[in-house]
Amino acid sequence: MTKGSLYGVGIGPGDPELLTIKAHRIITTVPVIAYPTMENGKVLARAIVADFIRPEQIEVPMPLPFSVERSSQPYYDIAAAKIAEHLQVGRDVAVLCEGDPMLYGSFMYIFRRLADRFHTEVIPGISSTLASAAMLGAPLTFRNDVLSIMPATLDADTLHDRLAVADAAIIIKLGRHFAKIKSILQDLNLWERALYIERATLPNQVIKPISEVDPDNVTYWAIVMIPSQTNPQ
Amino acid sequence: MTKGSLYGVGIGPGDPELLTIKAHRIITTVPVIAYPTMENGKVLARAIVADFIRPEQIEVPMPLPFSVERSSQPYYDIAAAKIAEHLQVGRDVAVLCEGDPMLYGSFMYIFRRLADRFHTEVIPGISSTLASAAMLGAPLTFRNDVLSIMPATLDADTLHDRLAVADAAIIIKLGRHFAKIKSILQDLNLWERALYIERATLPNQVIKPISEVDPDNVTYWAIVMIPSQTNPQ
Repeated sequence: MTKGSLYGVGIGPGDPELLTIKAHRIITTVPVIAYPTMENGKVLARAIVADFIRPEQIEVPMPLPFSVERSSQPYYDIAAAKIAEHLQVGRDVAVLCEGDPMLYGSFMYIFRRLADRFHTEVIPGISSTLASAAMLGAPLTFRNDVLSIMPATLDADTLHDRLAVADAAIIIKLGRHFAKIKSILQDLNLWERALYIERATLPNQVIKPISEVDPDNVTYWAIVMIPSQTNPQ
Repeated sequence: MTKGSLYGVGIGPGDPELLTIKAHRIITTVPVIAYPTMENGKVLARAIVADFIRPEQIEVPMPLPFSVERSSQPYYDIAAAKIAEHLQVGRDVAVLCEGDPMLYGSFMYIFRRLADRFHTEVIPGISSTLASAAMLGAPLTFRNDVLSIMPATLDADTLHDRLAVADAAIIIKLGRHFAKIKSILQDLNLWERALYIERATLPNQVIKPISEVDPDNVTYWAIVMIPSQTNPQ
């Protein structure tokens, strides 16, 4: 029996219109759709493409732990096994992945478990990091600029060193780390250039001056952006 | 008279199926489509969306100099003036931009000239930098990794310093700078991890082992990728 194909499908940052034509084609034609779900009930990936899923398609939820204290790897073992069952009997499976599958994406863990056994194709998606620049109307990098993307979860010294040499930067996974980031940016004279956005492209997107952000009330889905100062004439 | 709206439309790395649904909708409904053209005749942006353009749409080519020795800014002055004429009389204009408009994109120069005078919306697109990771089947960044995107055109010392601290890196604009990059990567023990791709997602895409690349024969549109070594258990 011919095995099915595995598709890692980037579905973009949240606006369903930011799916690619290719992602849309694959999602609407495969017999099986898999997607991460959180133990706390959050199922954003499925919500983004909800209007495209048909009743006859098989859905495979992939539960992941809500707490970052617990390793998610045993959960990916179980999800990969469930997906493999469908591939083994010839059913193509699309695994939904918010943003881009290869950039901090959940699909990479499925990829590592199955890509050597099944034909696998990765469909790039719009990352929320870059979509934020579009939403903010902020040109990000010119010409010879270096862009660094970094999680706010890093320790303060590392963040300081990386930000000190970046021409442009995107800081992700803000949450309770906002006060630390603020202090570093002020130290480096980057605070005045910094832009703030929450949940880029989603209906509940928030853009506000970074000086008005309450450090005690910042979502994990917030991004701080330092656009390049290069201004070619 | 109501002025037209300006759309900066990211059209992705080359595969027409990697346009977003939103980019496709805007391109197929606006009365005016503008796109960069090179003096040497290269018009990749238009070629990507050629099948979507209808005869009744007005096309506005934006000539840009082929040589990097000449400033492109006077060319953008002329292009912006031509686009403004259409906006002024109420016609919406879509400006095509390969990849993502805000990441080393040509649209940023139009944005800076017109966004304060006309309603402007930026549609994010798939950047060739990230599409390369999908095409290479190379998970790029995990968890707390820092990703740096840098042009090979930088001087060797800067490249060395930035690559020494990046968990994952994407080096763009290779061309005649390949030998310099090779030497730096060997110095930093990154050469064995490096991956090579030309023209990601285009019909003439090339993937080959980086050890087989002829340094004297590397296109500007080549990318070298250093995926993260992080391997969460």
